[in-house]
Amino acid sequence: MNSSSSSKLIEEAVDQMSSLPGIGRKTALRLVLQLLERNKDEVDRFSRAFVNLKSEVKFCKQCHNISDDLLCHICVNKSRDNGLICVVQDIRDIMAIEATSQYFGQYHVLGGVISPMDGIGPSDLNINSLISRVEENQTKEVIIALKGSMEGETTGFYIYKKMEKLNVKVSTIARGIAVGDELEYADEISLGRSILNRSLYTESLAK
Amino acid sequence: MNSSSSSKLIEEAVDQMSSLPGIGRKTALRLVLQLLERNKDEVDRFSRAFVNLKSEVKFCKQCHNISDDLLCHICVNKSRDNGLICVVQDIRDIMAIEATSQYFGQYHVLGGVISPMDGIGPSDLNINSLISRVEENQTKEVIIALKGSMEGETTGFYIYKKMEKLNVKVSTIARGIAVGDELEYADEISLGRSILNRSLYTESLAK
Repeated sequence: MNSSSSSKLIEEAVDQMSSLPGIGRKTALRLVLQLLERNKDEVDRFSRAFVNLKSEVKFCKQCHNISDDLLCHICVNKSRDNGLICVVQDIRDIMAIEATSQYFGQYHVLGGVISPMDGIGPSDLNINSLISRVEENQTKEVIIALKGSMEGETTGFYIYKKMEKLNVKVSTIARGIAVGDELEYADEISLGRSILNRSLYTESLAK
Repeated sequence: MNSSSSSKLIEEAVDQMSSLPGIGRKTALRLVLQLLERNKDEVDRFSRAFVNLKSEVKFCKQCHNISDDLLCHICVNKSRDNGLICVVQDIRDIMAIEATSQYFGQYHVLGGVISPMDGIGPSDLNINSLISRVEENQTKEVIIALKGSMEGETTGFYIYKKMEKLNVKVSTIARGIAVGDELEYADEISLGRSILNRSLYTESLAK
């Protein structure tokens, strides 16, 4: 018989569950007790999913997207524009952009953003592989699609500076008021940018 | 090499994560990708916590609370009133009531509430063990502390009917406006009950 006491088992499960971002201890306890109500096979399957994921998932050697082979399905897709690389923070951003069906270039997953507070510097991110990729493939344009936070902007600027020496256009995604948003409820920064980055009415009609 | 494709591994992990109550697929994906960023040992520890919990946690034979022995620390505590049983839905409710330091009787965990919609009937809950416990221990009072939902009220009424034949007082926790709540923001049902169940001003001062 294992010597762990039941309250310690609960404690450890709550600790682990609340280690997930956005899950507080009260929510964690609720989730853990819900797991406890399931049968053993279900709990095993729940836990195994994460162990399997970690041990078996593979990443694309070129863009660092998740992949089943050496290169991911986007990198090997010949119908996509190889001259265009969209730089994103993580895999979720690829999923979000792919869901729009508006982009047909390649991606490059940084794996994070520069954040000195969290001890994340440029060398912790996939920036060197981006530089060599741009050099080797004669990329025409690098689109920076990072979040508008301080860290995102810093990372974007760092990449922009690195790209200056290379013969490549660097662009960034448009910021502004979301389609359908009420102006009065928009934050000032987004509204300000949407005025600065305004486009011709005829252009906006074409989109 | 395992034949699972990476996207299937992600898919299964997201399926499992979103099987938790209140976790949608978008949140689940965010949590899963955060797990993927951790090292293997951390993910193993995360997963093991739930498997260990399920396989090793023990429950009190008398009140169905989690326990390290045959009986839980509340049931074996001689300084607590054995004539008083507070009926709750699950273990969290015991934790919540214990945190108030206002209750010194015993508990009885039902393990749910009667909910025909979810296929949960009286026989799926620890109601028979409550009845035999009340009979055997000559319990003085059964306090029903279930939530104020339709299912909670139904379960409370079912237990009340079962207790009618036994020589035991059945009470229910007070419902009303929470301490510190503004009357104008309270829901009508709670406000209504707090008026019906009003107490003498001198009594409320004593509490």
